[in-house]
Amino acid sequence: MSSLDALIDALKRLPGVGQKSAQRMAFHLLQHDRAAMQGLAQALRAAGEDIKHCQRCHTFSETELCRVCADPDRDARLLCVVESPADQAALERTASYRGYYFVLLGRLSPLDGIGTRDIGVTELLARALEGVEEVILATSFTAEGEATAHVLAEALRARGIRSTRLARGVPVGSELEYVDLSTIAHALVDRR
Amino acid sequence: MSSLDALIDALKRLPGVGQKSAQRMAFHLLQHDRAAMQGLAQALRAAGEDIKHCQRCHTFSETELCRVCADPDRDARLLCVVESPADQAALERTASYRGYYFVLLGRLSPLDGIGTRDIGVTELLARALEGVEEVILATSFTAEGEATAHVLAEALRARGIRSTRLARGVPVGSELEYVDLSTIAHALVDRR
Ligand SMILES: [Zn+2]
Ligand SMILES: [Zn+2]
Repeated sequence: MSSLDALIDALKRLPGVGQKSAQRMAFHLLQHDRAAMQGLAQALRAAGEDIKHCQRCHTFSETELCRVCADPDRDARLLCVVESPADQAALERTASYRGYYFVLLGRLSPLDGIGTRDIGVTELLARALEGVEEVILATSFTAEGEATAHVLAEALRARGIRSTRLARGVPVGSELEYVDLSTIAHALVDRR
Repeated sequence: MSSLDALIDALKRLPGVGQKSAQRMAFHLLQHDRAAMQGLAQALRAAGEDIKHCQRCHTFSETELCRVCADPDRDARLLCVVESPADQAALERTASYRGYYFVLLGRLSPLDGIGTRDIGVTELLARALEGVEEVILATSFTAEGEATAHVLAEALRARGIRSTRLARGVPVGSELEYVDLSTIAHALVDRR
């Protein structure tokens, strides 16, 4: 295989990149931005070597403890459980949560063979017993995310730890007309 | 800057990739496909080192002469001028052209300071004098592509070499109703 074909194939493994975009990317880099090509190669290598997981919350971190876990000024009574570092980053961007996190790095999916051990439930339960008063289950509102939240809520309840779920509802800024029906139905049920 | 931020920045230099997709790509690679990460780093490096330009037609090539230029069974009377290796690849995929190519690696753009020297006009004229009977100007049907074709046609005519332009017209498979007006107008003028 030529280096060009190998490059196109490698670019196709990026999420959302098909044959056509991969080809366009490869040609663009080769013709207009050889510096970006070397920069990306270097950034990929460095990220692969430097980025591990936080020992406490399992999010991506270049240090033993991530920035959030290492911050003593957070509210230690709150622990928010998310599926991925990307979800955690989204929550952090809202700047409206001041507790700590636990990142599952997945969600329960029996069909794919992903069980409680794979998402670190034992570690989560141990972490929740360190003075946490409320675990906010912020897994996705998908079938698997809901099932994961349910299992975690039961396990936490058995240990006397209260858990809550993010509110379902109409996205801020949306016109009701364009919101899908099940979201509206949930927003009705969860009305304040 | 952290290795994660550096990776997101590097991914943003890919065409069509903004902050959000770059972040999604980085998180996906880190969480699900570390092998793809190393593979892409390797492919970028190899491509940067291996892929040069064909000495004859200027397209990307890992050898002195590209596969097309090295093929003695092509029709040496035909030379097709394109703006980029991507355009050449598109023409090759049609499997309906059997001549050789000359790749400008750009198009005339006085405002951006891209002149005849930058797109290799001297080399093209020399190449066209090597037994070529018809130069097909397949530059884009944009203002700059048209201007480039015009300048090349004049220079070729002055040397007694015939040039043609790809036909403008209605894309195959399109309903007239949805084709833009200037395309229909050109298709009328160029009607066969
Ligand atoms: Zn952490
Ligand atoms: Zn060539």
